[in-house]
Amino acid sequence: MKKYKKTDLTSYTLGITLTIELLLTKPGVVEKIYYHPDINQNETFQKIETLAKNKFIPLEENVKIFNLLSAKENCFIIGQFIKYDEPIQANENHLVLVHPSNMGNLGTIIRTMVGFKIHNLVIIKPAVDVFDPKTIRASMGSFFHINIVFLDSFFEYSSQYKTHHIYPFMLQANIKLGEIAIQKPYALVFGNEATGLDSTYLTIGTPLLIHHSNQIDSLNLPIAVSIALYESTRNTL
Amino acid sequence: MKKYKKTDLTSYTLGITLTIELLLTKPGVVEKIYYHPDINQNETFQKIETLAKNKFIPLEENVKIFNLLSAKENCFIIGQFIKYDEPIQANENHLVLVHPSNMGNLGTIIRTMVGFKIHNLVIIKPAVDVFDPKTIRASMGSFFHINIVFLDSFFEYSSQYKTHHIYPFMLQANIKLGEIAIQKPYALVFGNEATGLDSTYLTIGTPLLIHHSNQIDSLNLPIAVSIALYESTRNTL
Repeated sequence: MKKYKKTDLTSYTLGITLTIELLLTKPGVVEKIYYHPDINQNETFQKIETLAKNKFIPLEENVKIFNLLSAKENCFIIGQFIKYDEPIQANENHLVLVHPSNMGNLGTIIRTMVGFKIHNLVIIKPAVDVFDPKTIRASMGSFFHINIVFLDSFFEYSSQYKTHHIYPFMLQANIKLGEIAIQKPYALVFGNEATGLDSTYLTIGTPLLIHHSNQIDSLNLPIAVSIALYESTRNTL
Repeated sequence: MKKYKKTDLTSYTLGITLTIELLLTKPGVVEKIYYHPDINQNETFQKIETLAKNKFIPLEENVKIFNLLSAKENCFIIGQFIKYDEPIQANENHLVLVHPSNMGNLGTIIRTMVGFKIHNLVIIKPAVDVFDPKTIRASMGSFFHINIVFLDSFFEYSSQYKTHHIYPFMLQANIKLGEIAIQKPYALVFGNEATGLDSTYLTIGTPLLIHHSNQIDSLNLPIAVSIALYESTRNTL
């Protein structure tokens, strides 16, 4: 048993709520459920026990894994699951993140995506580890409700999904979000937290700007993505 | 010299960018600038030196304070300033946060407020420490561009600002954000991260809902506030 690493084939849900979400939405990938000896064996624990038994998933009492993965946290249940691929839906709207670098941000973005019923996420590598337990935790369980693919370049994306209307979000864009109707199916494209999208994206699709005052350099990434998701799903939720 | 505490009369900007922002916007409250002996005495350092000298603010080489306040970070400049009161503007639009509990969230919200030109923040206590160096850092310098007041109850706010149109944001509201025009001057009101606003707010002003799917419990607080700021300043920035 070792600390979690990006190259591992398995990842973990830390805590009862996330583990229930995992068992309900992706039982097929769950390898094992660990419980801490100090757990209160109440109704919630029994719910997990039943869900696991029904799917023939072993439950194991274990202290070590809690010390390894969540030493600081008030966590009594850990779900261990195989990292999976869940192909994105070709005819649905997509969110494309180019080189995202912060796990908390990614979790928050995933939670907001599910809130606005955008369930297909494309990650252009290199990127932060989507399967890190910290990302999963920050998504508050929404992680298991989306499909994700990882691609090596934006070109790989755009050549596969030719009917999607592409909207790169850039400070250098001339059209403001809200000024034009967003055509479906769409791909909302955002760059890295620190660097944004490079200027080559000005020639791709319809670049959009979220207008803000010049007293800030930029909106933070999850804020910008969320505003774009709100605006593009307006009246369609 | 001690670690920062909420009850201290002074707080700190950790890093060069924040300290320049402090010197440019609030020179009157700055007590001292500390620099780390390892600092690169380049143009940026000279800019700080000039700004400080012009305002008769002492510069001091010091290691201890860096170890105390920012041991883990790559930080070579610290500004020490007196916590100040900056009354909110009575005729402008307000954001009211009831019992916010997370410093990072508060910093992100302040950055977004400045982005959408809402410069007046009301905090209903008890609340997280707005002046904590972590909040200031998360605001990316926007902190020094807003006015903040701290009040003991929402009633204290609403009885002082009787002409403001009050919009409490609540999951139980019936009107969706975007369905009605938001009247000025307005007060957008948000509850605590975990608990939201209690049901008494359903009887105050015009409660609004940011519509989202039932696959999530709620949007996270900075996301919800940012969407409300975006929508309420639509076409007026």
